Order: sequence, then C-alpha cells, then structure tokens
Amino acid sequence: MNLNIALLAGDGIGPEVIDQAVKVVNAVAKKFSHQINWTAALTGAAAIDAVGEPYPDETHAVCMAADAVLFGAIGHPRFDNDPKATVRPEQGLLKMRKKLGLFANVRPTFTFPSLIDNSPLKRERIEGTDLVILRELTGGIYFGERGRKDNGDTAFDTCTYTREEIQRLAKLGFEMAMGRRKKLCCVDKANVLESSRLWRETVQDMEKDFPEVEVSYEFVDAVAMRLVQWPSSYDVIITENLFGDILTDEASVISGSMGLMPSSSIGIHTSLFEPIHGSYPQAAGKDIANPLATVLSAAMMFEDAFNLKEEAAAIRAVVNKSLAEGIVTEDLAGKNNKAYKTSEVGDWLAANI
Amino acid sequence: MNLNIALLAGDGIGPEVIDQAVKVVNAVAKKFSHQINWTAALTGAAAIDAVGEPYPDETHAVCMAADAVLFGAIGHPRFDNDPKATVRPEQGLLKMRKKLGLFANVRPTFTFPSLIDNSPLKRERIEGTDLVILRELTGGIYFGERGRKDNGDTAFDTCTYTREEIQRLAKLGFEMAMGRRKKLCCVDKANVLESSRLWRETVQDMEKDFPEVEVSYEFVDAVAMRLVQWPSSYDVIITENLFGDILTDEASVISGSMGLMPSSSIGIHTSLFEPIHGSYPQAAGKDIANPLATVLSAAMMFEDAFNLKEEAAAIRAVVNKSLAEGIVTEDLAGKNNKAYKTSEVGDWLAANI
Ligand SMILES: CC(C)[C@H](C(=O)O)[C@@H](O)C(=O)O
Ligand SMILES: CC(C)[C@H](C(=O)O)[C@@H](O)C(=O)O
Repeated sequence: MNLNIALLAGDGIGPEVIDQAVKVVNAVAKKFSHQINWTAALTGAAAIDAVGEPYPDETHAVCMAADAVLFGAIGHPRFDNDPKATVRPEQGLLKMRKKLGLFANVRPTFTFPSLIDNSPLKRERIEGTDLVILRELTGGIYFGERGRKDNGDTAFDTCTYTREEIQRLAKLGFEMAMGRRKKLCCVDKANVLESSRLWRETVQDMEKDFPEVEVSYEFVDAVAMRLVQWPSSYDVIITENLFGDILTDEASVISGSMGLMPSSSIGIHTSLFEPIHGSYPQAAGKDIANPLATVLSAAMMFEDAFNLKEEAAAIRAVVNKSLAEGIVTEDLAGKNNKAYKTSEVGDWLAANI
Repeated sequence: MNLNIALLAGDGIGPEVIDQAVKVVNAVAKKFSHQINWTAALTGAAAIDAVGEPYPDETHAVCMAADAVLFGAIGHPRFDNDPKATVRPEQGLLKMRKKLGLFANVRPTFTFPSLIDNSPLKRERIEGTDLVILRELTGGIYFGERGRKDNGDTAFDTCTYTREEIQRLAKLGFEMAMGRRKKLCCVDKANVLESSRLWRETVQDMEKDFPEVEVSYEFVDAVAMRLVQWPSSYDVIITENLFGDILTDEASVISGSMGLMPSSSIGIHTSLFEPIHGSYPQAAGKDIANPLATVLSAAMMFEDAFNLKEEAAAIRAVVNKSLAEGIVTEDLAGKNNKAYKTSEVGDWLAANI
C-alpha cells in the first residue's frame, strides 16, 4: 500500500521518540512492501519559534492530506508559569484537535506482565487490568466561551455539550464495548452539572440500541477513587473532555509503564496517534527517553488507520522481544542492567522487525 | 464551656455514625466539664421525605445558631439515575455550603501505621504521606449559571471565579503551609482555562506576603498522576471546587483508611465537620459502618472550632487505642479477627475516654 503519514514531532523529547518510530515503521514497510510517504510539519513551541504560531496553516494542510498523523509531544515549560503569555503551544494542540475534528481520544490501559511491579499499585490490585478510556476531545470547557469581567477580577469558562457530540462519542464507546467485555461506564457529575445530565440522558437513550452492553453511570469523583482501587473492574469508560484529561492521566499510572502507553485520536478528517507521555523537557536532547510508547502508537496506526493487523502485530512482537531481552532505556532498565539509549532501542527494534 | 452543636445526621449510614460521635463527644464533655447543647436537624433525602426540601430553612437556622455543625452524610441512590429529578439531596448540600459560606473544605490525608497495608498503593510509596487538600467550596462550576438551549439538546455550565474568592482560599493555604512544611501547591488547568489563569495570577501575587513558603503550580492532570505516584511529596494543596472534588476523593484512597478520614469545612458563619465517606446506602441500618471518621471529625471540631486541643487529643488517643486493641468494625477487622458493630465501637470509645 501507499501510506501518507504526517509527522509532527513537536517539542521536548518529541523529535527523539518520533525518530525511533520512523525507523520501525520504515522497517515494517520494507518487510510488508508498503510505500511510506512521510511529510514532516511543525507544531507546538517549535512552530511558535519558527513561524509564531503553534499550529500553522501549512501543518494543517499536511495533516488534511495525510492518511494518518504520527505525533510526538508538545509543550514547553517556558510558557507554563506565564499566565499572560498570549501564544501557547497547547493552543496549537487544541486548534489541531478542533480543525481535524479529532473528537475521540482513545486510551487503552493494560499491564505488561514483565513490568507489573513497576506500578505504584499492588500487583493484586492491577493484575488483569484491561480498560479503555474514551475521552471526548473537541467539546466541553476546552472550547466554550471564556474571558474576564470586572477589570479582570472575574474570570469565567463555559462547558457546553450538544446531544450530537455526546452521541458520536458514546456510539464509539458502545461499539468498542461490543468488541470487548461488553461493559460501558459513563462518567459524569450529573448530581451537579447540567451538561452531565445531558450526557447521562443521551447515553440512557442509546442503551436500547446496544441491548447486550451493560451500562453503568458513575460520578467522576467516585471513579477517581475506584480507578486506583479496582481498575480491573472497568472495561470501556466514556467521558467528557476535562474529566477525560484527568482520568486518563490518573489511569496512566496504573500499569507502571507510562513510557509504553500509546493512544489514538479518532477524527472526522484523519486520525492521530501519539504516546500518552508529554514533552518531558528535562530529558530532551539527551537520547534517554523511552521510545516504546511512540512505537506502539505506530502499531495502533497500522491497525486502526490502515487496517493492517499483521504489521501492527509485528511491531508489538518486536517491542515485547525488546522488553524480554532488556533492550530498554534507563526508566525500565533497573539498577543492575545496562540502559540503552533512545536511538539504540530504535535501531534494535528496526533491525529485529 | 457551653458548646452549641448542630447535629445533621443525613442519609444512609449518617445517623449510625453520628450516634457514635455523639456518645464520644458526650463522654469528653463529661470528663472535661463542658456543657453540650445538641440540636438535631433534617437534611438530604431524609429532609426531602419529611418536608420536601433537602436543606430546609429550619435546618439553616439551627446551623446559624450553632458554634459548629457535626454532619453525617447525604445522598440516596434513588435520585442518582434520574436525570430529570427536580429535587436532589445534593442540592441541599450545595445550598448549605453556600448559605453558611463554607468556602474551604479541609481534607487531611495521612497514613495510620497499623493500617498502611490496607492501601492499594505500595507501602514505600505512601510512607510519610502527610498532606492537606484545601478545596474551594462555594464557587466555580458548582455555582455558576447553567441550563439548556436548543429545545434541551444543548446543555451548559459556567465556571466563574473572582480574585477575592481565590485570595480567601489561598490565604488559608499559605497560613496552613506556614504551620507545616511550608510548601504550597496550586493546582489548576492554566494552560486551558481562564479561571485557572486567574487562580495562578492571584496566588503568584500573594507569594510576596509569605516569602518563606515555597509555591509550586501544577496542572490538575499531572497532579492526578503524582498523587498516586508520590503523595509524600505534597504538603498543602489548594485548588478550585471541581478539581478539589476529584482530587480529594482520589487522595482518600492513599492511606487505605477511608473509613477513618475526617474533614472540616471552614465557613463565614460557622464551620462544619464530617467524615469524608458518603452515605453508603448498602450498609445503612446494618450497624456495620465504621464510625471512626465521624469520631475523628468531632476531634477536628474540638480543635479547630472550639480551640480545645486536649479534648481533641483525648478523642484521637482513644481511637488509636481502639485500633491497637482491635475494637474495630468489619472493614478493618481482617479475616481472622472479631468484627465489632458500629454501636459497640461507639460504646467502647465512650467508655474509654
Ligand atoms: C496540554 C493540554 C492542553 C492537554 C489537554 O489538557 O488536553 C494535555 O493535558 C493532554 O491531555 O493532551
Ligand atoms: C454530593 C456532591 C454534590 C458532593 C460534591 O461534589 O461536592 C460530594 O461529592 C462531595 O465531595 O462532598
């Protein structure tokens, strides 16, 4: 096949981990006789520095023309503690999500048996965990009206949801549950928020179309607890944008393998694949960051965007092999083992595809 | 002293755990020669059933006249999955918070050495944890304008904060940090929300008044992670209402002793003391709920509302004694030990003050 992939490396460790994914994807393409057309484009702080805009129009054009987007990470600490900064890397991320219509962020959480003891949670609490959080990504308080009043002394943000936005996300959740353990949990704060009541009402109305799916409704505060108490009790979780932001990050801790967790964002125009970790500026340029989450995001891309399951399986197999043989970066090496460089791990993976 | 305490037992296990706290408080009063005037009042589902309103005016009058409020729990599952219910127990809670001006919810999180292995988190992750979350309780999206548009197909909620509301909460946080390890963490989502940017700006402006306090600013998603990774790295956390709702519940899991965790809500007109657990309807009426969180909330009341430290210490001492001697309810008894009834634990505590 002829595959057009937009490559958005972004900030911090983004470029380094993306480089390794490119090596692996190229090796897979060679093995399975695909032709990859990579088109790199600027985003985040890197794009602000270059053209004054975190998601430039040229980058958007590249993404729109691509079959899929492979994304590194964005964000730079120099913007974080400056509440008055007018251009922020994160704005690029939000603009990209909105313009590409990336309405559903899909975050699987599962444990790697060989790494389970890295988790801050006890083994018996997390064994068997295999859940997916579906976060609505283009609505809610992220995109509502916001501003100041009273000479700047009052600030407001608005959370808005329409029935259609909720249906679109929930439909994906029901379908995903049908292909899994048939359990769906809708997370909201319906005891307080009107938007949550619309979520609950809408999902309740959809239950009849998926009679085999067992649906539960839980409050976000309760889920923040249960996610660390009994994560294995969840199958598919659907939730709105801000709750999803918090819960997906909380869930990322469960497996003890944050450096390995991939994600996808399903869009109207194209889909995007990225590691769940951030730009990790402290490690940038040191060739020490773990590239596996990005490599596994590329596996998700083969499976979900191109429907090429064997290629995805080949990537997952080589990642498991690298874990088994200890070809890993310092975060996974442990005290007594050799830590490989980011680039060495990438080379090894590509050579062993 | 003459102490006027409003007694709001509420729903579910509320009345049972409140009963035990009353026994203990009466025993303390006898020992230290205080005169307690208890005034019971209705709230929650219990109040809806009796007078059609979850926080009746008579209850408010009782609270306003009291030196402190001792609160059980509210909430009943029969309201949870009915998005169209017009009167909800939680509305009573919110109305009470607003009318009593309970602007700061104080939630300490610490470990009990004898119970540390009950935590889902590994011992080495949580040992030494001693943090307080200060949650703003009368502002934000809980109290902003909300509603429907487009024939009910669009729902919105508004999060509003004023500089004054933030200052009032943050001042308490700075002061609390001064009496502790002098570290303050302001949790927000300033990379997205305007209200968060006002939080950050306001707290930054206050730093100069507390030069000894080391202040950090973290995003709520990052904190949701770090709270389960390294809870002992935090001292005092300040945050807005909704983030506080989620994070305090998440933090409640850390110690493994949810049934023991007290909280207070500091108000303009009076202060309120309550266990962090909910109304736990499945256990209601069975005399099995753990009363210790409510008893320890009464200890907080003696210390914070009445400035009676010896009395508070006496309560904490008898609770520790009950833990050491295994006079505990089934949640703490373990497989091979006798589980005491809620009322038996209360009797034992009162007798041993
Ligand atoms: C950087 C930030 C705007 C973003 C978000 O909140 O969505 C990030 O936390 C994420 O989850 O991708
Ligand atoms: C019952 C609910 C409205 C309440 C809240 O969200 O504040 C509860 O979760 C709490 O934390 O006291």
